[in-house]
Amino acid sequence: MSDIRAGEIAVALPDTFDAGVYFIGHIRTPWKTRGECPRNARGSDAVCTIELEERYAAALEGVETCTHLVVLYFMHEARRDLVVQVSRHSGRRGTFALRSPVRPNPIAISVVRLVRVEGKKLSVVGLDCLDGTPLLDIKPYFASVDSVPEAVVGWSKGGGE
Amino acid sequence: MSDIRAGEIAVALPDTFDAGVYFIGHIRTPWKTRGECPRNARGSDAVCTIELEERYAAALEGVETCTHLVVLYFMHEARRDLVVQVSRHSGRRGTFALRSPVRPNPIAISVVRLVRVEGKKLSVVGLDCLDGTPLLDIKPYFASVDSVPEAVVGWSKGGGE
Repeated sequence: MSDIRAGEIAVALPDTFDAGVYFIGHIRTPWKTRGECPRNARGSDAVCTIELEERYAAALEGVETCTHLVVLYFMHEARRDLVVQVSRHSGRRGTFALRSPVRPNPIAISVVRLVRVEGKKLSVVGLDCLDGTPLLDIKPYFASVDSVPEAVVGWSKGGGE
Repeated sequence: MSDIRAGEIAVALPDTFDAGVYFIGHIRTPWKTRGECPRNARGSDAVCTIELEERYAAALEGVETCTHLVVLYFMHEARRDLVVQVSRHSGRRGTFALRSPVRPNPIAISVVRLVRVEGKKLSVVGLDCLDGTPLLDIKPYFASVDSVPEAVVGWSKGGGE
Protein backbone atom coordinates (compact mmCIF):
# COMPACT_ATOMS: atom_id res chain seq x y z
CA MET A 1 0.00 0.00 0.00
CA SER A 2 1.17 3.50 -0.72
CA ASP A 3 1.98 5.92 2.08
CA ILE A 4 -0.74 7.74 3.93
CA ARG A 5 -0.87 11.45 4.76
CA ALA A 6 -0.24 12.95 8.19
CA GLY A 7 -3.41 12.59 10.25
CA GLU A 8 -4.79 9.68 8.25
CA ILE A 9 -5.59 6.40 9.99
CA ALA A 10 -5.34 2.94 8.39
CA VAL A 11 -6.79 -0.19 9.99
CA ALA A 12 -6.17 -3.89 9.47
CA LEU A 13 -8.99 -5.26 7.33
CA PRO A 14 -10.47 -8.74 7.93
CA ASP A 15 -8.62 -11.67 6.36
CA THR A 16 -11.59 -12.79 4.31
CA PHE A 17 -14.54 -11.26 2.53
CA ASP A 18 -18.08 -11.87 3.79
CA ALA A 19 -19.82 -11.91 0.39
CA GLY A 20 -19.07 -11.58 -3.30
CA VAL A 21 -20.26 -9.30 -6.08
CA TYR A 22 -20.49 -9.72 -9.84
CA PHE A 23 -19.40 -7.06 -12.27
CA ILE A 24 -22.54 -6.92 -14.43
CA GLY A 25 -21.20 -4.51 -17.04
CA HIS A 26 -18.93 -1.53 -17.46
CA ILE A 27 -19.24 2.23 -17.57
CA ARG A 28 -17.84 4.19 -20.51
CA THR A 29 -16.84 7.77 -19.74
CA PRO A 30 -14.52 10.34 -21.37
CA TRP A 31 -12.13 10.20 -18.38
CA LYS A 32 -9.07 7.95 -18.47
CA THR A 33 -7.34 9.16 -15.28
CA ARG A 34 -8.50 10.30 -11.83
CA GLY A 35 -7.15 13.77 -12.62
CA GLU A 36 -9.46 14.12 -15.62
CA CYS A 37 -12.64 13.15 -13.76
CA PRO A 38 -15.00 15.98 -12.82
CA ARG A 39 -14.98 16.94 -9.13
CA ASN A 40 -18.48 15.60 -8.69
CA ALA A 41 -21.37 14.23 -10.66
CA ARG A 42 -22.94 17.63 -11.36
CA GLY A 43 -19.61 18.85 -12.66
CA SER A 44 -20.15 17.59 -16.20
CA ASP A 45 -22.93 17.32 -18.75
CA ALA A 46 -21.11 14.53 -20.57
CA VAL A 47 -23.33 11.71 -21.78
CA CYS A 48 -21.80 8.47 -20.51
CA THR A 49 -22.67 4.93 -21.51
CA ILE A 50 -23.51 1.99 -19.29
CA GLU A 51 -22.86 -1.28 -21.09
CA LEU A 52 -24.63 -4.19 -19.47
CA GLU A 53 -23.50 -7.77 -19.95
CA GLU A 54 -25.72 -9.68 -22.34
CA ARG A 55 -26.96 -12.14 -19.71
CA TYR A 56 -28.66 -9.34 -17.77
CA ALA A 57 -30.20 -7.50 -20.76
CA ALA A 58 -33.78 -8.60 -19.99
CA ALA A 59 -33.52 -6.91 -16.59
CA LEU A 60 -33.83 -3.51 -18.31
CA GLU A 61 -37.53 -4.02 -19.08
CA GLY A 62 -39.33 -0.96 -17.74
CA VAL A 63 -36.17 1.06 -17.06
CA GLU A 64 -37.02 3.29 -20.04
CA THR A 65 -39.98 4.68 -18.07
CA CYS A 66 -37.62 6.19 -15.46
CA THR A 67 -36.32 9.73 -15.75
CA HIS A 68 -33.55 9.09 -13.22
CA LEU A 69 -31.65 6.05 -11.99
CA VAL A 70 -29.28 5.18 -9.18
CA VAL A 71 -26.12 3.57 -10.53
CA LEU A 72 -23.90 1.51 -8.24
CA TYR A 73 -20.36 0.80 -9.31
CA PHE A 74 -17.17 -0.62 -7.87
CA MET A 75 -14.14 1.64 -7.50
CA HIS A 76 -11.77 -1.23 -7.95
CA GLU A 77 -8.58 0.81 -7.86
CA ALA A 78 -9.18 2.36 -4.45
CA ARG A 79 -7.47 1.28 -1.24
CA ARG A 80 -9.92 0.10 1.43
CA ASP A 81 -8.14 0.45 4.75
CA LEU A 82 -8.37 4.16 5.63
CA VAL A 83 -10.89 5.16 8.30
CA VAL A 84 -9.74 8.78 8.58
CA GLN A 85 -8.67 10.71 5.49
CA VAL A 86 -7.04 14.07 4.90
CA SER A 87 -7.47 16.12 1.75
CA ARG A 88 -6.95 19.73 0.77
CA HIS A 89 -10.60 19.98 -0.23
CA SER A 90 -12.30 18.29 2.72
CA GLY A 91 -9.79 18.58 5.56
CA ARG A 92 -9.57 15.68 8.04
CA ARG A 93 -12.72 13.55 8.03
CA GLY A 94 -13.89 10.08 8.88
CA THR A 95 -14.39 7.91 5.81
CA PHE A 96 -18.15 7.64 6.42
CA ALA A 97 -18.45 11.45 6.35
CA LEU A 98 -16.91 11.44 2.85
CA ARG A 99 -17.86 10.28 -0.64
CA SER A 100 -14.22 9.38 -1.33
CA PRO A 101 -13.64 6.12 -3.27
CA VAL A 102 -11.38 5.06 -0.39
CA ARG A 103 -13.61 3.03 1.99
CA PRO A 104 -13.91 -0.55 3.27
CA ASN A 105 -16.36 -1.39 0.48
CA PRO A 106 -15.53 0.89 -2.47
CA ILE A 107 -19.08 0.97 -3.80
CA ALA A 108 -20.12 4.32 -5.29
CA ILE A 109 -23.63 5.50 -5.95
CA SER A 110 -24.51 8.13 -8.54
CA VAL A 111 -27.90 9.57 -9.35
CA VAL A 112 -28.09 9.94 -13.12
CA ARG A 113 -30.55 11.29 -15.66
CA LEU A 114 -31.52 8.67 -18.22
CA VAL A 115 -31.17 9.88 -21.81
CA ARG A 116 -32.01 6.67 -23.67
CA VAL A 117 -31.95 2.89 -23.64
CA GLU A 118 -30.74 1.00 -26.71
CA GLY A 119 -30.61 -2.74 -26.26
CA LYS A 120 -28.21 -3.38 -23.39
CA LYS A 121 -26.73 0.13 -23.46
CA LEU A 122 -27.93 3.08 -21.39
CA SER A 123 -26.96 6.67 -22.13
CA VAL A 124 -26.96 8.76 -18.96
CA VAL A 125 -25.84 12.14 -17.63
CA GLY A 126 -24.39 12.53 -14.14
CA LEU A 127 -21.46 10.14 -13.83
CA ASP A 128 -17.97 11.21 -12.81
CA CYS A 129 -16.08 7.91 -12.76
CA LEU A 130 -13.15 6.52 -14.72
CA ASP A 131 -13.69 4.92 -18.11
CA GLY A 132 -14.04 1.16 -17.68
CA THR A 133 -15.41 1.27 -14.13
CA PRO A 134 -17.19 -2.01 -13.26
CA LEU A 135 -20.98 -1.78 -12.83
CA LEU A 136 -22.75 -3.39 -9.85
CA ASP A 137 -26.39 -2.36 -10.08
CA ILE A 138 -29.01 -0.08 -11.62
CA LYS A 139 -32.07 1.01 -9.64
CA PRO A 140 -35.05 3.27 -10.36
CA TYR A 141 -34.80 6.59 -8.48
CA PHE A 142 -37.97 7.18 -6.46
CA ALA A 143 -38.26 10.83 -5.43
CA SER A 144 -40.65 9.72 -2.69
CA VAL A 145 -37.91 7.94 -0.77
CA ASP A 146 -34.63 9.10 -2.35
CA SER A 147 -35.02 12.87 -2.60
CA VAL A 148 -34.29 15.05 0.46
CA PRO A 149 -33.74 18.60 -0.81
CA GLU A 150 -33.26 20.00 2.70
CA ALA A 151 -30.46 17.62 3.68
CA VAL A 152 -27.32 19.28 5.02
CA VAL A 153 -23.73 18.08 5.38
CA GLY A 154 -22.59 20.40 8.14
CA TRP A 155 -18.85 20.08 7.61
CA SER A 156 -19.19 21.03 3.94
CA LYS A 157 -19.83 24.74 4.13
CA GLY A 158 -21.50 25.45 0.80
CA GLY A 159 -23.47 22.20 0.85
CA GLY A 160 -21.50 21.01 -2.18
CA GLU A 161 -19.97 17.57 -2.37
CA MET B 1 -33.54 -22.39 -5.58
CA SER B 2 -37.24 -22.09 -4.99
CA ASP B 3 -39.70 -21.99 -7.87
CA ILE B 4 -40.26 -18.85 -9.86
CA ARG B 5 -43.59 -17.32 -10.84
CA ALA B 6 -45.13 -17.45 -14.31
CA GLY B 7 -43.49 -14.77 -16.44
CA GLU B 8 -40.33 -14.54 -14.37
CA ILE B 9 -36.95 -15.16 -15.99
CA ALA B 10 -33.91 -16.65 -14.25
CA VAL B 11 -30.42 -16.61 -15.74
CA ALA B 12 -27.27 -18.60 -15.06
CA LEU B 13 -24.97 -16.47 -12.94
CA PRO B 14 -21.18 -16.49 -13.43
CA ASP B 15 -19.25 -19.26 -11.68
CA THR B 16 -17.11 -16.86 -9.69
CA PHE B 17 -17.42 -13.47 -8.05
CA ASP B 18 -15.44 -10.52 -9.38
CA ALA B 19 -14.82 -8.80 -6.04
CA GLY B 20 -15.53 -9.20 -2.35
CA VAL B 21 -17.22 -7.11 0.30
CA TYR B 22 -16.85 -6.89 4.07
CA PHE B 23 -19.79 -6.77 6.42
CA ILE B 24 -18.76 -3.72 8.48
CA GLY B 25 -21.58 -3.90 11.01
CA HIS B 26 -25.21 -4.82 11.39
CA ILE B 27 -28.55 -3.06 11.34
CA ARG B 28 -30.98 -3.47 14.22
CA THR B 29 -34.64 -3.03 13.34
CA PRO B 30 -37.95 -4.10 14.93
CA TRP B 31 -38.67 -6.48 12.00
CA LYS B 32 -37.79 -10.17 12.27
CA THR B 33 -39.49 -11.42 9.08
CA ARG B 34 -39.99 -10.04 5.57
CA GLY B 35 -43.74 -9.91 6.23
CA GLU B 36 -43.26 -7.54 9.17
CA CYS B 37 -41.06 -5.05 7.26
CA PRO B 38 -42.74 -1.81 6.15
CA ARG B 39 -43.52 -1.63 2.43
CA ASN B 40 -40.90 1.06 1.96
CA ALA B 41 -38.57 3.29 3.89
CA ARG B 42 -41.09 6.07 4.38
CA GLY B 43 -43.56 3.52 5.73
CA SER B 44 -42.29 3.68 9.29
CA ASP B 45 -41.03 6.25 11.79
CA ALA B 46 -39.21 3.56 13.75
CA VAL B 47 -35.78 4.56 15.03
CA CYS B 48 -33.37 1.84 13.94
CA THR B 49 -29.80 1.31 15.05
CA ILE B 50 -26.71 0.84 12.93
CA GLU B 51 -23.99 -0.94 14.90
CA LEU B 52 -20.59 -0.52 13.34
CA GLU B 53 -17.75 -2.94 14.01
CA GLU B 54 -15.19 -1.54 16.41
CA ARG B 55 -12.37 -1.48 13.84
CA TYR B 56 -14.24 1.12 11.74
CA ALA B 57 -15.40 3.37 14.61
CA ALA B 58 -12.98 6.20 13.78
CA ALA B 59 -14.53 6.48 10.33
CA LEU B 60 -17.60 8.14 11.90
CA GLU B 61 -15.70 11.39 12.59
CA GLY B 62 -17.78 14.19 11.07
CA VAL B 63 -20.85 12.04 10.39
CA GLU B 64 -22.65 13.81 13.26
CA THR B 65 -22.73 16.99 11.15
CA CYS B 66 -24.96 15.30 8.53
CA THR B 67 -28.74 15.50 8.73
CA HIS B 68 -29.15 12.59 6.30
CA LEU B 69 -27.06 9.59 5.25
CA VAL B 70 -27.10 6.96 2.54
CA VAL B 71 -26.90 3.50 4.06
CA LEU B 72 -25.80 0.55 1.91
CA TYR B 73 -26.56 -2.94 3.10
CA PHE B 74 -26.48 -6.49 1.82
CA MET B 75 -29.73 -8.40 1.45
CA HIS B 76 -28.01 -11.70 2.08
CA GLU B 77 -31.14 -13.84 2.00
CA ALA B 78 -32.24 -12.83 -1.51
CA ARG B 79 -31.82 -14.98 -4.61
CA ARG B 80 -29.72 -13.29 -7.29
CA ASP B 81 -30.64 -14.91 -10.58
CA LEU B 82 -33.93 -13.28 -11.62
CA VAL B 83 -33.79 -10.69 -14.41
CA VAL B 84 -37.57 -10.34 -14.81
CA GLN B 85 -39.84 -10.45 -11.78
CA VAL B 86 -43.59 -10.61 -11.28
CA SER B 87 -45.40 -9.29 -8.23
CA ARG B 88 -48.94 -8.32 -7.38
CA HIS B 89 -47.77 -4.83 -6.49
CA SER B 90 -45.48 -4.04 -9.42
CA GLY B 91 -46.65 -6.35 -12.21
CA ARG B 92 -43.99 -7.79 -14.54
CA ARG B 93 -40.80 -5.72 -14.55
CA GLY B 94 -37.13 -6.03 -15.27
CA THR B 95 -35.01 -6.29 -12.14
CA PHE B 96 -33.28 -2.96 -12.82
CA ALA B 97 -36.68 -1.20 -12.93
CA LEU B 98 -37.36 -2.49 -9.38
CA ARG B 99 -36.02 -1.92 -5.88
CA SER B 100 -36.64 -5.58 -5.04
CA PRO B 101 -33.93 -7.32 -2.96
CA VAL B 102 -33.74 -9.93 -5.73
CA ARG B 103 -30.94 -8.76 -8.08
CA PRO B 104 -27.49 -9.94 -9.22
CA ASN B 105 -25.84 -7.88 -6.47
CA PRO B 106 -28.33 -7.64 -3.60
CA ILE B 107 -27.07 -4.29 -2.35
CA ALA B 108 -29.78 -1.97 -1.05
CA ILE B 109 -29.53 1.76 -0.53
CA SER B 110 -31.67 3.70 1.92
CA VAL B 111 -31.69 7.42 2.58
CA VAL B 112 -32.05 7.89 6.32
CA ARG B 113 -32.41 10.77 8.74
CA LEU B 114 -29.68 10.76 11.38
CA VAL B 115 -31.04 11.05 14.91
CA ARG B 116 -27.81 10.65 16.88
CA VAL B 117 -24.36 9.13 17.00
CA GLU B 118 -23.18 7.42 20.17
CA GLY B 119 -19.78 5.81 19.89
CA LYS B 120 -20.05 3.23 17.12
CA LYS B 121 -23.86 3.25 17.09
CA LEU B 122 -26.04 5.43 14.87
CA SER B 123 -29.74 5.96 15.49
CA VAL B 124 -31.57 6.64 12.23
CA VAL B 125 -35.08 6.86 10.79
CA GLY B 126 -35.92 5.53 7.33
CA LEU B 127 -34.86 1.89 7.21
CA ASP B 128 -37.18 -0.95 6.24
CA CYS B 129 -34.88 -3.97 6.39
CA LEU B 130 -34.79 -7.12 8.47
CA ASP B 131 -33.20 -7.11 11.90
CA GLY B 132 -29.59 -8.26 11.63
CA THR B 133 -29.04 -7.11 8.04
CA PRO B 134 -25.32 -6.78 7.25
CA LEU B 135 -24.04 -3.23 6.72
CA LEU B 136 -21.79 -2.35 3.75
CA ASP B 137 -21.32 1.41 3.83
CA ILE B 138 -22.44 4.77 5.21
CA LYS B 139 -22.19 7.93 3.10
CA PRO B 140 -23.12 11.58 3.64
CA TYR B 141 -26.24 12.58 1.63
CA PHE B 142 -25.49 15.63 -0.49
CA ALA B 143 -28.71 17.27 -1.68
CA SER B 144 -26.68 18.94 -4.44
CA VAL B 145 -26.06 15.63 -6.22
CA ASP B 146 -28.44 13.13 -4.58
CA SER B 147 -31.77 14.98 -4.51
CA VAL B 148 -33.96 15.03 -7.62
CA PRO B 149 -37.49 15.95 -6.49
CA GLU B 150 -38.88 15.91 -10.05
CA ALA B 151 -37.74 12.35 -10.85
CA VAL B 152 -40.47 10.06 -12.17
CA VAL B 153 -40.73 6.28 -12.39
CA GLY B 154 -43.25 6.01 -15.20
CA TRP B 155 -44.42 2.46 -14.57
CA SER B 156 -45.26 3.31 -10.95
CA LYS B 157 -48.46 5.30 -11.30
CA GLY B 158 -48.53 7.31 -8.10
CA GLY B 159 -44.77 7.83 -8.11
CA GLY B 160 -44.50 5.76 -4.92
CA GLU B 161 -41.99 2.95 -4.55
